Amino acid sequence: MNDQITQIRAVGQSHPRREAREKVTGRIEYIHNLRLPNMLYGKIFRSTVAHARIVSIDTSEAAACPGVDMVLTGEDIRKIMPDPHFGVMFHDQPVLALDKVRYVGEPVAIVLASDPNVAAEAVALIDVDYDELEPVFDEMEALSAETFVHDELKPGIPEIQFLKGVRDTNVGFPYQLRHGGDVDTAFEEADRVFEHTFRTHPSAHVPLEPPVTVAEPTGAGLTLHTANQSPSFVRYEISRLLGWPQHRIRVRVPYLGGGFGAKLWIRLEALVAAAALLAKRPVKVSLSMEEQFYTITKHGATLKIKSGLDKDGRITARKCEVFWNGGAYADIGPAVAFHAGMTAAGPYDIENVAIDSFSMYTNRPVAGAMRGFGHPQLIWAYENHTDMMAHELGIDPLEFRRRNILREGKEHATGTALNTSSVEKVLDRVAERLQWGKPFERGEGTVKRGRGFAIGIKASIAPSTSEAIVRLGADGSATLICATVDMGQGSDTAHAQIVAEVLNMPVEMVHVVHPDTDVAPYDTGTLGSRSLYHMGHAARLAAEDAKAKLEELAAEVGAQPGSNVPIWELFARKNGMPVGHVVGTASFIPDGHIPPDPMTGQSPHITPYWMLGATGAEVEIDTETGRVTVLKMINVADTGTQINPKIVDHQISGASIMQLGQTMQEKVHFDFGQVTNASFADYKIPSMLDIPQIETSILDGAEADGPFGAKGVGETGSFCVSSAIANAVFNAVGVRVSEMPITGETVYRAMRAAAGEPLEEE
Amino acid sequence: MNDQITQIRAVGQSHPRREAREKVTGRIEYIHNLRLPNMLYGKIFRSTVAHARIVSIDTSEAAACPGVDMVLTGEDIRKIMPDPHFGVMFHDQPVLALDKVRYVGEPVAIVLASDPNVAAEAVALIDVDYDELEPVFDEMEALSAETFVHDELKPGIPEIQFLKGVRDTNVGFPYQLRHGGDVDTAFEEADRVFEHTFRTHPSAHVPLEPPVTVAEPTGAGLTLHTANQSPSFVRYEISRLLGWPQHRIRVRVPYLGGGFGAKLWIRLEALVAAAALLAKRPVKVSLSMEEQFYTITKHGATLKIKSGLDKDGRITARKCEVFWNGGAYADIGPAVAFHAGMTAAGPYDIENVAIDSFSMYTNRPVAGAMRGFGHPQLIWAYENHTDMMAHELGIDPLEFRRRNILREGKEHATGTALNTSSVEKVLDRVAERLQWGKPFERGEGTVKRGRGFAIGIKASIAPSTSEAIVRLGADGSATLICATVDMGQGSDTAHAQIVAEVLNMPVEMVHVVHPDTDVAPYDTGTLGSRSLYHMGHAARLAAEDAKAKLEELAAEVGAQPGSNVPIWELFARKNGMPVGHVVGTASFIPDGHIPPDPMTGQSPHITPYWMLGATGAEVEIDTETGRVTVLKMINVADTGTQINPKIVDHQISGASIMQLGQTMQEKVHFDFGQVTNASFADYKIPSMLDIPQIETSILDGAEADGPFGAKGVGETGSFCVSSAIANAVFNAVGVRVSEMPITGETVYRAMRAAAGEPLEEE
Repeated sequence: MNDQITQIRAVGQSHPRREAREKVTGRIEYIHNLRLPNMLYGKIFRSTVAHARIVSIDTSEAAACPGVDMVLTGEDIRKIMPDPHFGVMFHDQPVLALDKVRYVGEPVAIVLASDPNVAAEAVALIDVDYDELEPVFDEMEALSAETFVHDELKPGIPEIQFLKGVRDTNVGFPYQLRHGGDVDTAFEEADRVFEHTFRTHPSAHVPLEPPVTVAEPTGAGLTLHTANQSPSFVRYEISRLLGWPQHRIRVRVPYLGGGFGAKLWIRLEALVAAAALLAKRPVKVSLSMEEQFYTITKHGATLKIKSGLDKDGRITARKCEVFWNGGAYADIGPAVAFHAGMTAAGPYDIENVAIDSFSMYTNRPVAGAMRGFGHPQLIWAYENHTDMMAHELGIDPLEFRRRNILREGKEHATGTALNTSSVEKVLDRVAERLQWGKPFERGEGTVKRGRGFAIGIKASIAPSTSEAIVRLGADGSATLICATVDMGQGSDTAHAQIVAEVLNMPVEMVHVVHPDTDVAPYDTGTLGSRSLYHMGHAARLAAEDAKAKLEELAAEVGAQPGSNVPIWELFARKNGMPVGHVVGTASFIPDGHIPPDPMTGQSPHITPYWMLGATGAEVEIDTETGRVTVLKMINVADTGTQINPKIVDHQISGASIMQLGQTMQEKVHFDFGQVTNASFADYKIPSMLDIPQIETSILDGAEADGPFGAKGVGETGSFCVSSAIANAVFNAVGVRVSEMPITGETVYRAMRAAAGEPLEEE
Repeated sequence: MNDQITQIRAVGQSHPRREAREKVTGRIEYIHNLRLPNMLYGKIFRSTVAHARIVSIDTSEAAACPGVDMVLTGEDIRKIMPDPHFGVMFHDQPVLALDKVRYVGEPVAIVLASDPNVAAEAVALIDVDYDELEPVFDEMEALSAETFVHDELKPGIPEIQFLKGVRDTNVGFPYQLRHGGDVDTAFEEADRVFEHTFRTHPSAHVPLEPPVTVAEPTGAGLTLHTANQSPSFVRYEISRLLGWPQHRIRVRVPYLGGGFGAKLWIRLEALVAAAALLAKRPVKVSLSMEEQFYTITKHGATLKIKSGLDKDGRITARKCEVFWNGGAYADIGPAVAFHAGMTAAGPYDIENVAIDSFSMYTNRPVAGAMRGFGHPQLIWAYENHTDMMAHELGIDPLEFRRRNILREGKEHATGTALNTSSVEKVLDRVAERLQWGKPFERGEGTVKRGRGFAIGIKASIAPSTSEAIVRLGADGSATLICATVDMGQGSDTAHAQIVAEVLNMPVEMVHVVHPDTDVAPYDTGTLGSRSLYHMGHAARLAAEDAKAKLEELAAEVGAQPGSNVPIWELFARKNGMPVGHVVGTASFIPDGHIPPDPMTGQSPHITPYWMLGATGAEVEIDTETGRVTVLKMINVADTGTQINPKIVDHQISGASIMQLGQTMQEKVHFDFGQVTNASFADYKIPSMLDIPQIETSILDGAEADGPFGAKGVGETGSFCVSSAIANAVFNAVGVRVSEMPITGETVYRAMRAAAGEPLEEE
C-alpha cells in the first residue's frame, strides 16, 4: 500500500513461541484431555507371541463383563472396512490382526466401555489360541530366513506396484543407486580398500504425549481428533479404508506433545475410526507410555560400507549395503530405505558409487521414520568409516575429509549437482569451533579425554506439496489456514512470522489455525524438516496473494498508493462497516524435481535443497570402567536465514540431545520379540544431568531458496552426534565402538579386547 | 475442462436437505448437547421489577452455597469489559444490569457451578434491593411519558451518531421518508381521505432450541460455541467489548434448531464470554423455554395509516406513522423502524408519501427482528386499510389494487424505480388461484365463509457483504467455507447446489463447513432472506474462481481442453500423488447501492432486489361464537429461479404457518411487565390441527439477478397472511378486526358491536 511505511521486521526475530504461555500454564489443548459426551474408551488386547497363526479368539468373557459395550476383533473391522489393511507405502498392516500375528504387542482385539478401567480389566479376559510360527527378529537373519513375515508383498503407492504379489521374501523394498562406472572395477583399481560393518539398535521416539485418537461419528461422516503429524494423509487413508469420499472424513489436530515421526501416517486412527463407526458412538484410545514402545520404534540397521582409495587418499569407489529392521509392517520404512539410502555415501565426492538399501520385515514392532529419517544411523556408519580410514592412512581426519568432500557444483552420488557450498563450510566451522589440531587437556591418570567430529548431509523430501490460505481482515489481523502440525518445533510461530513479514504487520496479529482437513488445504505432512521450506513458501505466497488483493481493494475504493489509508477504512469504504476479508491462497511444490531412475537412482534434480550438519564432541573416559562422559557438543547447522533464531537454536540443540540419548544410553531391549524395557524407569532418555555443554553454530547465509532464504532445521542437529562421539572416544582411548549405544560396558570391552584381554560375553 | 461433458443439473432440483438424516435420527450436533471438560453451568438471576434503580445486590448466600463456584454481577463484568454495554445499533444493553433494571426478566446476576441444579438453587438465594421507578409499557404511552427508559441515547454505529447524548426521550430512532410533493397539500386536494389505526401485539420467535452459548477460554483467547445467526458480528462485538483484537475470538456455530431472528447479534454471548474469562473455565448457559420469552420478542406496533384518493379511486397521498415497541434495549429495532418503515406505503404507486417510523423504548423485554423484519405488521395494516377503502368506495378490492399498484419502472416511495413486474404478477396470481370474483360456497346457517387476499413488498437488506471460500480437491469433492448459518432454512443444501452447478459435480460431493470465524470469511449475518442472494453469489463466484484455477492447473500439467483427464490425475501430475486442492475465493456486495438521504429516505438505488408476496385465504366463522377457522391459504411468492423447489415450498408454507399462528392465536401477555404465558402450555403455536390446506404458487421467472436468477424466500410467505385472513373475515361477516390476534372473542365482540349490541369489556 504505502512505500513510506516502515517495514516491520518479523523474520529474523526471536519472537516468543505463541503457545508458550498456554503450555507452561497447563492450559493447552491436548487430545488426551478431550472427552466427548457418550464417549467410549477403547483398550487394546495385544499379541503375546511374535509370530503365529490365530486359531481362535475367545472374547465371550470380556464381552459379558458388566460395563463392557463391545469387543471387536479383526473380523469385525471387515464389516466396515472391506480390506482393513493400512499403510503409507504398503497396504500391509491390519487394523486388528486377522489370520496372523506378526509381533509381540500387535493389536488383536479392542474392548470398548464407558469406563476405561472396565475396558482394561475386560481385556485381561480375552483368550487367544495361537499356532506359533518361527519368528525372525534380526534384519540380517531375515535376509536368509525361511520363515516369512508376510505371505506376499502388498504395495500401495503406484511407484512400487512392480512388487505386487512377490512371495518368499522378507525384503520389503530394495533401493539401489549406481553412480559413475562399475564399482567393482573401481575397487580393483584402488590403491587401498576398507570395509567396515556397523550396527545401530532400535530405539524409541517416546514423545511425552503417547499416541491418542478420538473418533466421533457425525451424521454425515466421521471426525477424527488425533495427535498426528499428517492430517491430510489420515483423511486420505481412512477414506480409502472405508470406501468413502474424502470429504466425509474430518481430521483435526491441536498441538502435539512431541512427535519426532512417531505420529506420522496411521497410528491409532484406523482402529478408532472403525470402532466408533461400529459402536455408533465416540471412541477414544489413548496409549500408555508402555504401549508406545510396542507401537512405533526407530529403525535399527546393519550398515556395511566399503571404500576404495587412490594413493592420494581420494576415495574413488564406495559400496554401501544397508539393512533396515523395519519390524512387522512396512510403514514408512521403504521410504527410509530409499531416502536415506540415496545419501548413504555421504557428503563426499566419489566417482563410483553403488548403494543397496533394503527395508526388511522382521517380527518386531513397526519401525517408523524418526527425526533424521535414517540419516543419523547412516552418518554413524559413514563417519566412523571415514575416521577409521583416515587413521589407517595416517591422514588427519580433517585433512582426509577436505580431500574428499563434495564441493559446490560437483555431482552428488544421485547425479544431482550440489547447489551449496555448505559441505566445506560446516567442515571448516566445526574444525574451527572445536579448535581441531590445537592441543587440549588430554586428561589425567586413568581419565582420558578425546575430541572427534563428523559431517552429514540429507536431501529434502521430494516431491512434496504444501498449500495454504491467508485471510486478511478489516481488523488488521491475518489468519493462516494450513495443515502443518506444530508438535513443539515452533512451526506456528515461524509461519506467522513469514506471513507478518509479507503483510508488514505485527506477528501477534497473525493467527494460525490448527490443522483441520475440512478447511486446511493439502499438505504432505509435518516431517523431514520440510515444513518451513514448503509450507513457509506456501504461506509466503498466500500472504502475497492476499496483499495483492488488498491492493486491488484499495484501488477499487479510491485509496491512492502512499495515502496511508488504514486497512479498516478500505473495507469500510467497500462494505459500509469496517468488516470483511481478502483471502489469499497458494500451492507450493518445488520447481524442477526429476524422479530418480529406478535402476540407478540417478536424477539431475533430486532435491530442492540439502541440509548440512556437523558435530564436534569432546569426551572424557574413565578407563577403569569404560564410562564415557560427553563434556561438550558443538553443533554446526546450515540453516539459511534464521526465521526465529531462538527456535532454530532450540531445534538444533534439542535434536542433538535426542541423538545423544540414543548414542549413549537408549536402546529398546527385546526378549524373543518382547520389549523388556518399555518404561522410562528402564528406558532412560537423557536427564538434565546427562546433557553436556552445548554450542550451536549457525551457517545462516541466505543461500537457500526457501522463504526469505530459510530452510528446515528440525533434524540437522541429530545427524552427526553419534559418530562425533564415537570418533572422540577413539581419539581418547584408541578403541572403536561399532555398535550403539556407546555404554561404559561396550567401551570397556573394546578396551580390554584392544589390550588383548577380551572379556567373556555374558 | 471439457465442453463435451454433460452438465450435471444441481440447481433447480429438489435435492434432499443434507442434514435431514442427522436430524431425524437425533444425531445432529446442537450446542445444547455440548459439554466441555471442567465446564461450569451458568444460571441467571433476573429482575422481578420492570423499572428500578438497583440499591444493592446481596449474593453472599448464593456464593456460600456448597458447590457454587462464582456469582457475578454487572460490576464484576466491568473487570473484563470496561464498558459492558452491547448492541448492534446502540451500545445500550448491559451484559448484566448495572445501575438500573429496565424490564422484568432482565439478567442481574449469574451463578456458576459445576452442577446446573446447584446453580439454579443458588440463584433463588440472591437478594436485590430495588428503588422502583415508574415503568412505561405501551409504545404510544412511551411517546409522551415523563419516565424514560434510558437517561440518554448511546448510538453505536456511525450513521446514528447524531443521536449521541440525546436525553428525555423514549424514541430510540426516528426514521422519516418524504416522497413527491407536500403530503398535507395532497390530502387537502384529495377527493376522499381515509385514516385507520391498527395494532399488532408482541409475539415470540420461540425456536424449539432456546438460545445457548458455551464459552471456552483458550490460552490465546476465547472460543464461543453458540447458537447464533451472525457469527461474524459476534466476533466483532465481543472483541469490541473486551478490547481484544478480533482474531483472539473464535465463534463456532453448528446447526440451529430454528432462529427466525431470535438468535441474531448478541444474546448470551457477551455474558457467557465474560463469565468464562472471569472463571477461567468453560461456561455454558442454556436458556429454558420460559427464559426465551423474557429474552427476545417480536415487535408489537401501533400503525396509523392515512390515504387521500382522487375521484377515480387512485391513491394520491399517504401518510404512515408507525410506533414499534422495541422494549428496553434497541437491539435491531432501529433497523426495523428504518427498513420496514421504508415500505410502509406498500407496493402502491402513490405520488405523495410521508412516513415516520419510530423505534420506541419501553419497559418490556427486548424486541428483535423476526421473520419478515417488521413487514408482516406493516402489511397487516396497509392491506387492511386497502380493503377498507375499497369497501367504502364500493370498488372491488382486486380492481382497487389494480388501479394503484406499482408497476415495473415506476418509482417506489423510496425514489427507487421498481425493477420487477412482480407486483402485478403476484396480484394476478393470487386472484386467479383464489378464483376471486367467482361464486363460492358462502356457508350455511350460523356458519359463514369468506375470502380475502393481500399483497406485500419488502426490500433486501442493503448494503451487506458475503464472502466465501470454495476448496476443490483432487478427490473430486468441493468444500464451501462460509459464515451463513443453516438454522433450518436449508441454506447449506442450496449453497451446495450452487457450487455443484458451477463445478459440474454431484451435489453430494460438495461439503459445507459449519460457520467458524477462524476460517470462514465475513458475512453480515443470516437474516432478512439475504443469504441465498448474497452468499449464493459469493459461493458461485468462489466456485468460478476455483474452476478457473483448475483450468490453470490443467494447462500447467498439459491436459488439453476436452481431453477428459479426471481431476485426480491433474493433481497427480502436479503433486506426484492424487492429492491437493485449488482454492477459490470471492467477496460479494451488490453493485450500485446508494444510501438514502437521511431527511427524505430517497435513493435511486435502495435495494438490489425486491421480494413480493401475496396470500389468499378462505375462512369459516361460527357466528354464534366468533370462532374463525382458516380453511385454506394460498401463498404466492416471487422467488426467481428456485434453486431447490422443495425447500422453497417449505420455506413459503412454513413462514405462512408461523404467521398464521401469530394472526390467530399467539400473543405474549404481560401483567405490569411480567410475561404471564411464558410456556407452550399457555402460549400456543399452531399444531397440526390448526394448519389449513396450503397451496404454494411460485413466480419463478429468472428475472432476478441473484445467483442463477434466484432470490431469498425465507420471509415472503409471512408477509400477507394476517391481512388476507382479516380481509376474509370481513368478507364473511362484515366486521373488521384492527388488532391481532384474530381470536373468536375479538370477532364475536366486533360482530356484537357492529350489530349495535357491544359486549362489556372485561
